[in-house]
Amino acid sequence: MYLCPMKPLILITNDDGYRAGGIRALIETALPFGEVLVVAPAEGQSGMSHAMTVKTPLRLEKRSAAPDCVQYVCTGTPVDCVKIALNRLVDRPPSLLLAGINHGSNSSASVLYSGTMAAAMEGCMSHIPGIGFSLSDHAPNADFSPYLEQVGNIIRKVLQHGLRKGTCLNVNIPKIPVSDMKGTRICRQARGYWREEFERRTDPNQREYFWLTGEFYNEEPDAEDTDEWALSRHYISIVPVQIDMTCYDSMKSLKRIFEK
Amino acid sequence: MYLCPMKPLILITNDDGYRAGGIRALIETALPFGEVLVVAPAEGQSGMSHAMTVKTPLRLEKRSAAPDCVQYVCTGTPVDCVKIALNRLVDRPPSLLLAGINHGSNSSASVLYSGTMAAAMEGCMSHIPGIGFSLSDHAPNADFSPYLEQVGNIIRKVLQHGLRKGTCLNVNIPKIPVSDMKGTRICRQARGYWREEFERRTDPNQREYFWLTGEFYNEEPDAEDTDEWALSRHYISIVPVQIDMTCYDSMKSLKRIFEK
Repeated sequence: MYLCPMKPLILITNDDGYRAGGIRALIETALPFGEVLVVAPAEGQSGMSHAMTVKTPLRLEKRSAAPDCVQYVCTGTPVDCVKIALNRLVDRPPSLLLAGINHGSNSSASVLYSGTMAAAMEGCMSHIPGIGFSLSDHAPNADFSPYLEQVGNIIRKVLQHGLRKGTCLNVNIPKIPVSDMKGTRICRQARGYWREEFERRTDPNQREYFWLTGEFYNEEPDAEDTDEWALSRHYISIVPVQIDMTCYDSMKSLKRIFEK
Repeated sequence: MYLCPMKPLILITNDDGYRAGGIRALIETALPFGEVLVVAPAEGQSGMSHAMTVKTPLRLEKRSAAPDCVQYVCTGTPVDCVKIALNRLVDRPPSLLLAGINHGSNSSASVLYSGTMAAAMEGCMSHIPGIGFSLSDHAPNADFSPYLEQVGNIIRKVLQHGLRKGTCLNVNIPKIPVSDMKGTRICRQARGYWREEFERRTDPNQREYFWLTGEFYNEEPDAEDTDEWALSRHYISIVPVQIDMTCYDSMKSLKRIFEK
């Protein structure tokens, strides 16, 4: 009889790159729960969504190994990091995949663009429960420490209860004093989108170029069941995200049109 | 009274790049339905999913202008192409967004990785009905001509009936003789994933590197309501795809765990 069963293996990645404060804070928070394997991008990969590297090969470099924590840097995207970890580095299926803590929010429609959430979804594909964490603070030196107790609580609950197959959690933390925090709320993804503006500039050779900029527009600011509402009311928002993108509600009417 | 109302504007992009046979075939098929604006990536962008270009600026170059068809090349991703088209190039909201025809299938879980489908979803954000078309033939010289009548029929029906807000269509065409084709089927996204293998190689400097490879694994080959099943039985599969990724079925149980 084993008195000391094998510790749970926790795979950690992010999209801000290996050196980011957010992943450092996440590793520290995860370590009490098990053995940690970190595979993170060498450089920032924000806005990479579910992109994979198919045209160039990947490099993988072991950066440090300590008891219960081995860390690799990968030249690819967050999704590449998850794929190569699961395929080449793990000795057993991870019990949990953590991504983040992202420097900046990934609420509402940002779930589609986010490399952090894509990494969590990539875990779903292999039936590994995943959580993407984001703090609504883009600053490279953002202070994550006030929120780590809450992050730890969420990790503990997911390890305890698991998640429905094919789903992961999109956790967003508002940047407010912890004393003002009202708790956690299970939400749906708010309907909204990024209103893009492209700033037009002219280079020294008189050729024009465009910088992407833009701001988020919430289409339903009063909907109390959305992540945007919860965040604006000082809750940590948790949206269960599924990788099945089928719109089941459209199927009946589409059958009438297309299956005739 | 206007006897000749303004023609519908149709925005077209892809992820195989401006020169690909698939987009040329799609432009030709769309032209009878309206005025066409093409904004396509300069180079192939397969597997880029919803990635956006945030670290470098974008370049945009007008390549040709003919009656009813203006074509631009953009240095960014498929999603960048849609964003810059909507923000900088259109004189009215497009009635339809078409992406493809992709050289290769985008059924099942590939919807998450596909730049073609990400472009269609990007249209959803701005409430533009979108269709992503893919042919299960990766060859650069794939012959799309046998399937263009079917593609045209689908375009016509969507222009006529519209689509539910926040949804687009993922259309996959099996590479079979048209005489063997059984029709179109409305399907759900099959549960499946890519089993990745990373091929390990050693460079001339004795450093290792990895090439992503892998094969698709269908978790439910006998499910008759899935896109994979329809394709294997000689149907064109049409999956309605929604940009709301919330797993509503998990919310109740998660509330019990996280809102205590």
